[in-house]
Amino acid sequence: MKLYPVVMAGGSGTRFWPLSRKGRPKQFLHLLGDAPLLAATVARLPPLAKLDRTYVVCGPAHARTVKKMLPELPPENVLVEPCARNTAPCVGLAALHVVRRDPEGIMAMLPADHHVARKAAFRDALAAAAAVAEQGAITTIGVRPNRPETGYGYLKVGPRMPPPRRTPTKASRSRQGNPQRGLLPHKVDCFVEKPDAATAAGYLAGGDYLWNSGIFVFRADVILEEIRRTMPALGEQLESIGTALGTPRATRVLKKVFPECPSISIDYGVMEKSDRIAVIPADFGWSDVGSFAALSEVRARDAQGNVTEGDALILDGKDNVAIAHPGRLLAMVGVDDVIAVDAGDVVLVCRRDRAQDVRKAVEELKRRGREDLL
Amino acid sequence: MKLYPVVMAGGSGTRFWPLSRKGRPKQFLHLLGDAPLLAATVARLPPLAKLDRTYVVCGPAHARTVKKMLPELPPENVLVEPCARNTAPCVGLAALHVVRRDPEGIMAMLPADHHVARKAAFRDALAAAAAVAEQGAITTIGVRPNRPETGYGYLKVGPRMPPPRRTPTKASRSRQGNPQRGLLPHKVDCFVEKPDAATAAGYLAGGDYLWNSGIFVFRADVILEEIRRTMPALGEQLESIGTALGTPRATRVLKKVFPECPSISIDYGVMEKSDRIAVIPADFGWSDVGSFAALSEVRARDAQGNVTEGDALILDGKDNVAIAHPGRLLAMVGVDDVIAVDAGDVVLVCRRDRAQDVRKAVEELKRRGREDLL
Repeated sequence: MKLYPVVMAGGSGTRFWPLSRKGRPKQFLHLLGDAPLLAATVARLPPLAKLDRTYVVCGPAHARTVKKMLPELPPENVLVEPCARNTAPCVGLAALHVVRRDPEGIMAMLPADHHVARKAAFRDALAAAAAVAEQGAITTIGVRPNRPETGYGYLKVGPRMPPPRRTPTKASRSRQGNPQRGLLPHKVDCFVEKPDAATAAGYLAGGDYLWNSGIFVFRADVILEEIRRTMPALGEQLESIGTALGTPRATRVLKKVFPECPSISIDYGVMEKSDRIAVIPADFGWSDVGSFAALSEVRARDAQGNVTEGDALILDGKDNVAIAHPGRLLAMVGVDDVIAVDAGDVVLVCRRDRAQDVRKAVEELKRRGREDLL
Repeated sequence: MKLYPVVMAGGSGTRFWPLSRKGRPKQFLHLLGDAPLLAATVARLPPLAKLDRTYVVCGPAHARTVKKMLPELPPENVLVEPCARNTAPCVGLAALHVVRRDPEGIMAMLPADHHVARKAAFRDALAAAAAVAEQGAITTIGVRPNRPETGYGYLKVGPRMPPPRRTPTKASRSRQGNPQRGLLPHKVDCFVEKPDAATAAGYLAGGDYLWNSGIFVFRADVILEEIRRTMPALGEQLESIGTALGTPRATRVLKKVFPECPSISIDYGVMEKSDRIAVIPADFGWSDVGSFAALSEVRARDAQGNVTEGDALILDGKDNVAIAHPGRLLAMVGVDDVIAVDAGDVVLVCRRDRAQDVRKAVEELKRRGREDLL
């Protein structure tokens, strides 16, 4: 069994504006430390998966940045989507490459812009998911919630499944003396959307709901089969792209066919419709780093709960996020629960619980034709 | 009777940091419109007082800026204090110059950094005060409060005084067909410090308290006499500075004696001790523009009560002050009652009701040795 991580780096989210821009989306930002999120995502895979088996999918505008950011990644492992078509076509495109290289290859779909605090535990969960996926299951990793988070989708855990027949990968095996509690496959009862606060509190108390991490592990041949079954049109489109792979027509066919693919998520297109879904409940300090407010969860805070970066001075204030621009001071006086970000050409001030609404500023600027700031 | 306005521009306040700096104090800032506060203060005087009779007192670090900002002011009318010694020595120094030029000259002491909405009404009040001052009174202008402001000192109005025997100046006379209600002198019962909210509400309801505008009008010979009486040491120091005026020793004596003067305000040193105080109650849209929060009172607001300058975008927010830096966007999302100021090398975010505490940031930076930002 060989594992092929596929890092999905096609996002163009606006919730980290003004740090993130069209040419510099979230996955390229140093939001959590020394490395950009994408580089950290790739770096936490070895020794579970080798770099030459790791793929990154991104848009044409970002391929050069990806290759520069990951100089040890084989350039042919950067898969360029001609345009953004959500995750189902992205998964399909990557599956075509993997299945052509290794008909029994197992893919791990990984968002490029998430945070993982405990990397070994993360790899253990991935290895456990891979062992289940090898049996044909479409396996997701569900994260045990530690707070009534309303910003995540959830999944309801179903009954235990029989453990996989074969032993998991070497990396996982090496830790089997002290296995993570509950790295055992379960069925999935259902996926649920972001809940309101009361519902989220119920999920947390009940204990049978997990955060949907957006990490999926499956055999390339299995996911292509499921796509053909649930989305026949996309199945045919992928078929024609796949047939051309490795021929001189490959790029031409991709550029013609891919934009015609339906823009649909793999969650909606396959996960919520398939009966082959399994989940590995796990716990490795995960966050989707969904907005500036999430930085308070994943970064070091001072005694007043403030997160600061660069030359920031906070007086009489708590639970703020202050990101200064190099060479400039960012001073906050008497404010609580405020996010202030100096991006050089734009300064953003936002209430913490409105961090999701940063995109509204982006929309308004678009409406005003301020493309220079987007 | 000749009126000699003396604009006190020696302030080095920190409440408009980071816009204001050591080399660019509040009176030089364009806080309210096209002109810096100092220039606006001088510009609102004619036709009541000619520019060649107007004096500006400032520190040595700012004399060049003052002369450049006021090119039509005779350069010899810029009086340079060797160092800051609060307002009593400042008033005394100016009085020496005025009395030497015109033994019967009347001075109007004007802070350089206040706002006046109705300029003609302001000149009427000044003229009325000058007419009273001519009789020997030390006259202040008290502003009728329109809100229970806790940021101002107050004075309690006493009984009516007999109107001045001589008619006031030409400028005032020309408006006598429609005189401002109550431009008649009263005694002052007492000066009171900034009140708490309940006390301020009582002052407003009672009607016999006025805001202490810090504008004083008196004969130069009278104020020198009062200084001699209430502060004999300062009286002697001024005497020696005055004796040297017009001689080659003038600068040398000033530089030696002035720093030895007590640092004391004219309010405390004379006003609160003299029995020659009169007040002209007036109303001309006055503000001392004491902090960024005051900009909401004196500048145009949008429908949500926001004051913006430059390229500012406020979404879902009210009662904010947003001052963008040229060439940069300042965006606010979901915040109310916040002051955000981009000064180029410093960005400040401050809660509106904590605007007075901006000086705390200045103190903290001083403590940290960040002189570059002060």
